[in-house]
Amino acid sequence: MSEQAITRDQFSFWAEVEVRWGDMDAQGHVNNAVYFTYCETARIKLLRSIGVLGRSGGAAQGPTLVTTSCDFKQQVRYPATRDIGVRVERVGQRSFELSYGMFRQGTDEFVAGARSVNAWVDFAQARAVPLPDEVRATLGQYKTESP
Amino acid sequence: MSEQAITRDQFSFWAEVEVRWGDMDAQGHVNNAVYFTYCETARIKLLRSIGVLGRSGGAAQGPTLVTTSCDFKQQVRYPATRDIGVRVERVGQRSFELSYGMFRQGTDEFVAGARSVNAWVDFAQARAVPLPDEVRATLGQYKTESP
Amino acid sequence: MSEQAITRDQFSFWAEVEVRWGDMDAQGHVNNAVYFTYCETARIKLLRSIGVLGRSGGAAQGPTLVTTSCDFKQQVRYPATRDIGVRVERVGQRSFELSYGMFRQGTDEFVAGARSVNAWVDFAQARAVPLPDEVRATLGQYKTESP
Amino acid sequence: MSEQAITRDQFSFWAEVEVRWGDMDAQGHVNNAVYFTYCETARIKLLRSIGVLGRSGGAAQGPTLVTTSCDFKQQVRYPATRDIGVRVERVGQRSFELSYGMFRQGTDEFVAGARSVNAWVDFAQARAVPLPDEVRATLGQYKTESP
Repeated sequence: MSEQAITRDQFSFWAEVEVRWGDMDAQGHVNNAVYFTYCETARIKLLRSIGVLGRSGGAAQGPTLVTTSCDFKQQVRYPATRDIGVRVERVGQRSFELSYGMFRQGTDEFVAGARSVNAWVDFAQARAVPLPDEVRATLGQYKTESP
Repeated sequence: MSEQAITRDQFSFWAEVEVRWGDMDAQGHVNNAVYFTYCETARIKLLRSIGVLGRSGGAAQGPTLVTTSCDFKQQVRYPATRDIGVRVERVGQRSFELSYGMFRQGTDEFVAGARSVNAWVDFAQARAVPLPDEVRATLGQYKTESP
Repeated sequence: MSEQAITRDQFSFWAEVEVRWGDMDAQGHVNNAVYFTYCETARIKLLRSIGVLGRSGGAAQGPTLVTTSCDFKQQVRYPATRDIGVRVERVGQRSFELSYGMFRQGTDEFVAGARSVNAWVDFAQARAVPLPDEVRATLGQYKTESP
Repeated sequence: MSEQAITRDQFSFWAEVEVRWGDMDAQGHVNNAVYFTYCETARIKLLRSIGVLGRSGGAAQGPTLVTTSCDFKQQVRYPATRDIGVRVERVGQRSFELSYGMFRQGTDEFVAGARSVNAWVDFAQARAVPLPDEVRATLGQYKTESP
C-alpha cells in the first residue's frame, strides 16, 4: 500500500457494510478477519453486478481467491457503517486484481486498505483458464487512473 | 511469498487447528477470512507462550495488528486438521513481523502461507512504543535461518 | 413458539440486517448460528436505544444471556435483507425475556422466530441483581399485547 | 432443560472442541452464537460417524435444522477445550431430536446444555420425508436412558 494519501476518488465501485456488534473481538474492536469478510462482501457485490455468479451461483467457471492482504489504519467499533470502495487494479490473462479502500461512512476518513488477486478457474478441471472477453472488458471499466 | 518451496523446517513454533464444518462457505471449502482466524490462533498461542497477553489479557502494552496477508495454495474442506508453523521474520524497534506456513497435518503438503506485522502499542496512549527488551529477546529465539 | 401465525404487528421494535455472502455455509444458505448473531444485533440495538450499554460498553451492571432458541421456517440466501422485529415478552425481577420475528424485508413473509432470556448481572460480583426501575419501566414499553 | 443435574453419563457420543481466541466477543468470553457452532460440530461428527453426509456432502436426502436452543451455565474464555456430549433424545417419523451437554474438558463441570431438532428432507423436493430405516436404527443406538 503506497504512502500516498488514499482518497475516495481512487475507487469506482462502492458497497456499504454495517458493522455488527458480533464483529468485535475480545479487544473491543472489529476483528482483523472480519475486514476480509467486509472486502468479500464488496467484491461479490461488484462481481454480481457484472453478472459473475461464481461457483456457489452454479457457474462452470469463475473467480477463486489466490491472495489477499489488508493494512489496518483505524480500529472500528460498533455501532458503525463503513463505505468500501473497490477498483480494478489489473486484468490479466487468467486473473484479476482488486484494491479496496474502507472509509468512515460518508467521509474521507480512511480506515483500511486491501488487495486481492482472483484466478479465473474452470471449477470441474480445477485449473486457471483465460478470462472470458466480456468479463475482461467489464472489469476494465472499473479501473481508475492511478493517483 | 517467495517462489522457493516452503517446508516445515522453515518454522520454529507450531499450532494445530481443527477445521470446523462451519468454517466452510457456500463454495464448500474453508472461507478465506477463516485462514486469518487460523493464523490469529497460532499467533496468540505463540505470544502467550512467551508471556505476552495483550489488551484482552489486561496488559498495558502489547501487540496490535497493522497488516496481514495470505496466499492460498490449496482449498481445505472439513473434516481436516492443519498444522500451522510460525517463525519470527523480523523484530523491529516498535513492531515485529511473523511468517506462517499452513500444512496438511503431519505432512509437508503446503496449504497456505501468511504474513503479519504487529505494532507494539501502549493501549492507553494509543501509540506505538519500543518493544520491551525481554519481548525482543524472546521473539528473536523464534527466528529461523532464511531458506 | 406457538402455532398461531406470527405477524409483524406482534413486534414493537425493528432492526434491519443485511445478509452477507459469508453468512452462508456449505449448504448454500445462512448458517444456523448466524441467526443468533442477527438476533443479537437486534437485541443490542434495542438495549442501546434505551441506554443499556452492557459490559463491553463499560457498565457495572447489565444483561447476560442465559438462554436462547430459534425456530427456522425458511432458508435465507444471499443477497437478502431481513427485518427483525423484537418485543419484550416478560420483565422479571432479575431477568427479562425477548421474542424475535424475522421477516423478508418489507413483507409479512415469516422466516424465523426466536426467544432469549437475559439475566441482569452485577459484573464484578458475577451474580444476578434486581433490574433498575428505569430499565424495567422502559423495557415494559416494548411489550405487545399477546396475539 | 430440567433442573436435574446434567452429568456426563447422560451422553453417548463425544466431540472435543478447542476454543479459538476469535470465538470471544467484546465481553471477553465466547459469544453465544459460537456455542451453536460447537454443537453443530458435534452433531455433524455424530452424523458422519453413522454415514449421514448431508446436502453439502452430496446426498439427496438428509437432515435440516428446524429448531435449536441453548442454556448457558458458565462463561467460557480462551484458552480452553470443551467436551461436548450428545445423545439422541427422540427419533420420529421425519425428524430426530438431539441433546447436548458441554463440559469443561475431562471434568463433570457442566458449561451449557442444548437441544436441536432436525427434519429429514428430500433436498430436491424441499420437503420432509420418512427417515430411512437404517438411519433410524443407528440413531436409536445413541439414545440414553433418561436420568
